[in-house]
Amino acid sequence: MDLEGFRAALGDIPVEDNPRIVQQKSRDHYWYSPRLKSQLEHVTAAIVVSPRSVEEVVTVLREAFRFEVPITPRGAGTGNYGQAMPLSGGAMLNLMNLDKVISISHDRVRAQAGVVMEKLDEATIEAVNGELRFHPSTYRMASLGGFIAGGSGGVGSIRWGGLRNFGNILGLKVVTCEAEPRVLDLTGPDILKVAHAYGTNGIIVEAEMPLTAHYDWVDVLVGFDDAYEACAFAGQVALQDGLLCKEISPVAAPVPHDYFNRHRPFIKSREQSVVLIMAAPAAMPALADFVDFHKGDMLYRGDEAAPEVKAKLPPVYELAWNHTTLRGLKIDPTITYLQTQYPNLEKVKWAIDTFGDEMPMHIEMTKFDGRVVFSGLPIVRYTTEERLEEIIKLHEANGCLVFNPHRFTLEEGGMKQTDRAQLAFKKEADPSGILNPGKMIAWDDPDFDFDSGRTWLFTGLYTLGAA
Amino acid sequence: MDLEGFRAALGDIPVEDNPRIVQQKSRDHYWYSPRLKSQLEHVTAAIVVSPRSVEEVVTVLREAFRFEVPITPRGAGTGNYGQAMPLSGGAMLNLMNLDKVISISHDRVRAQAGVVMEKLDEATIEAVNGELRFHPSTYRMASLGGFIAGGSGGVGSIRWGGLRNFGNILGLKVVTCEAEPRVLDLTGPDILKVAHAYGTNGIIVEAEMPLTAHYDWVDVLVGFDDAYEACAFAGQVALQDGLLCKEISPVAAPVPHDYFNRHRPFIKSREQSVVLIMAAPAAMPALADFVDFHKGDMLYRGDEAAPEVKAKLPPVYELAWNHTTLRGLKIDPTITYLQTQYPNLEKVKWAIDTFGDEMPMHIEMTKFDGRVVFSGLPIVRYTTEERLEEIIKLHEANGCLVFNPHRFTLEEGGMKQTDRAQLAFKKEADPSGILNPGKMIAWDDPDFDFDSGRTWLFTGLYTLGAA
Repeated sequence: MDLEGFRAALGDIPVEDNPRIVQQKSRDHYWYSPRLKSQLEHVTAAIVVSPRSVEEVVTVLREAFRFEVPITPRGAGTGNYGQAMPLSGGAMLNLMNLDKVISISHDRVRAQAGVVMEKLDEATIEAVNGELRFHPSTYRMASLGGFIAGGSGGVGSIRWGGLRNFGNILGLKVVTCEAEPRVLDLTGPDILKVAHAYGTNGIIVEAEMPLTAHYDWVDVLVGFDDAYEACAFAGQVALQDGLLCKEISPVAAPVPHDYFNRHRPFIKSREQSVVLIMAAPAAMPALADFVDFHKGDMLYRGDEAAPEVKAKLPPVYELAWNHTTLRGLKIDPTITYLQTQYPNLEKVKWAIDTFGDEMPMHIEMTKFDGRVVFSGLPIVRYTTEERLEEIIKLHEANGCLVFNPHRFTLEEGGMKQTDRAQLAFKKEADPSGILNPGKMIAWDDPDFDFDSGRTWLFTGLYTLGAA
Repeated sequence: MDLEGFRAALGDIPVEDNPRIVQQKSRDHYWYSPRLKSQLEHVTAAIVVSPRSVEEVVTVLREAFRFEVPITPRGAGTGNYGQAMPLSGGAMLNLMNLDKVISISHDRVRAQAGVVMEKLDEATIEAVNGELRFHPSTYRMASLGGFIAGGSGGVGSIRWGGLRNFGNILGLKVVTCEAEPRVLDLTGPDILKVAHAYGTNGIIVEAEMPLTAHYDWVDVLVGFDDAYEACAFAGQVALQDGLLCKEISPVAAPVPHDYFNRHRPFIKSREQSVVLIMAAPAAMPALADFVDFHKGDMLYRGDEAAPEVKAKLPPVYELAWNHTTLRGLKIDPTITYLQTQYPNLEKVKWAIDTFGDEMPMHIEMTKFDGRVVFSGLPIVRYTTEERLEEIIKLHEANGCLVFNPHRFTLEEGGMKQTDRAQLAFKKEADPSGILNPGKMIAWDDPDFDFDSGRTWLFTGLYTLGAA
């Protein structure tokens, strides 16, 4: 790595080297995980490079290749698995200056990777009254490119499934890391080569996304006496084809009372479990009937709240997805969480009954290949790494998938196998392996046995003295 | 019945008594069924009354009650089960003059019952670029009120389920048949008292419906070598959460070749089964990839067809739903059809393997309580009523629901049980039982045993010499 040569070659592309700022920009939300927190806390890049155009990204990658400088791309840094942590140091590639909306039509939008999702929706709502199909709970901070590179779904996944599903990304513009970087327009199945690859095999600089109709989604909180009832109700709402909802999330007591401090006045007791819902205005009368029918307690509905009350509340999506855990961490830094998938309500019940208050349940209702499933983001009252592993193993033994959020590699956090298309594309697009090093086991350790039960270790971390 | 007294009391409300016109307006598409054809062909009303406002509907119903004149409401008369056949004679109530669009907002529309659905969509597209969630294949003729009173779903049901689902109808204005008719605004669960009740317990004069985003849906035909493959592909498309489709319908050979005469140039042989699709423009690239992946044959896609080619073709929805059978009947009047529901692909395979060319398969992919199911509208090469009954019984014995389209009563065509809410509402709204007589067994014969296996007979039909 010749950092000085690299810097000199960048011309007037903005570079930051103040160590405190660089360290701050070298971090994502890895600290959600106690394991990643201790493992990655010393990780930092040497500089942050902030190109302002695709041409400048090409320059950065050409010079990075030439001077062998590791490059870790970064949007707003809101990922939770260390996706944007620079395990080999080098340079952070900050893409937030590429924030232009390129074109908007009735059913799609093309924008640069660094645009903040809320800003993008503001532009498409203004132009065609359309909005993105889904967004993470970090909607007001996160970038489009970061979501595509490091996320999988979120608010809206109850209708549209995940980013991985055919048709949910229409096109990506990607810059390769070679002697002469190429700017590729990927469409169709090629999109999956770089989506959710953490920027390990090309830098996403532009994306074309389908739009759906925008509604003034109504925030709703419904109370239930116990966690199972809340989950059962949420499952029923999710199966109602005529009730248009963007978000359905049951959260077990005492999480709503203990962690949703702004909403606490609406929650009747510490024992109350709550279902968070975002419903289309036209769905509200039928949803209210449905709540009555299921003997739910309508704690809050945004369409009937006074403006001064609403103004003091965060939107419901900032209680859901990874924001549930975030709110918990602010109040009790010893907690953590898991990512699970329960194929049906019986498995949810098993988890509630088995773990009780050690793992207060939090479900996100989602579509998974055309079926309504219970995607779990339960809070875990963390004791030891061994116990966390035991909880994971109990889930797997009971037929419940776990996507481990306490691992920073693509494979260990995902399906525990190599994505051969992503690996093949990395060989083409990043032949010297300097894009986000240490995140793709298949690249660094092609013979790693995922069935071994072992956790993979990136030796580069030791080099940096960071593990 | 005092018909002359009734006519005199109607004032200047238009009345038609030309027997040929009255007979024509006394018919729906009951002739889809050979059984209903012979059973109902002599059925006719004495007059047709065509009110022009809700006030005139109130007048008609007040005078009908006073002079004991049976009233059978009618929209465009495109139902297939004799829903709008006047089994006790009397007067047809033609609602097509109530065709005003009352209000349109971003997410909903309120209109009178007689508005033609295509016209309503034209108005909402113009105003807010929105459209109805679903419509029957008779979109260009059928009225909104007729669809709600006599239909259940259609094009769009792959996304939104059926009219019966919570949230798919927002409100109904209904006129009762009493000494002083009431005009009731029904919302919430009350809507289900009169939706799909064939106008037996109140006359729907207005409806408020949710709107969804309008797209210029792209018509697509995909060919497969056999019926099972076509159904399997259709099932896979239906499970793709990211592929926005309004219609997915596999149709077994030789139906596409033999009956879809305008599209025949695109169909490669009589042995080719075809999947009919309406896809959003943004879904087309991913859909084309998906077709390739499943080794389908892209026979036609409207977004790439020349305007002069497109101009000669009916829209895909006029090949689907009950139009498939309609096109068959025009070429071979001896065929008929069934309405089935296959819970999964294995049951579809069972039906294809069991009945072969006696029952060329036609499936409509739909959502049913949040699950993707295979709704069958198979063509039946009709031989005898006994054989038709046998086919039905074989389905039921194999765990496949049959909604018998060869019966004119609500119960026998539906769930074979009394809808107690509909019956209770009839007692309130039509105490003398003159609205669409003979269609609700629960009213005429409260003790009828649906488990007896017997077909119910409306004795009024004999009185008219019509059965």
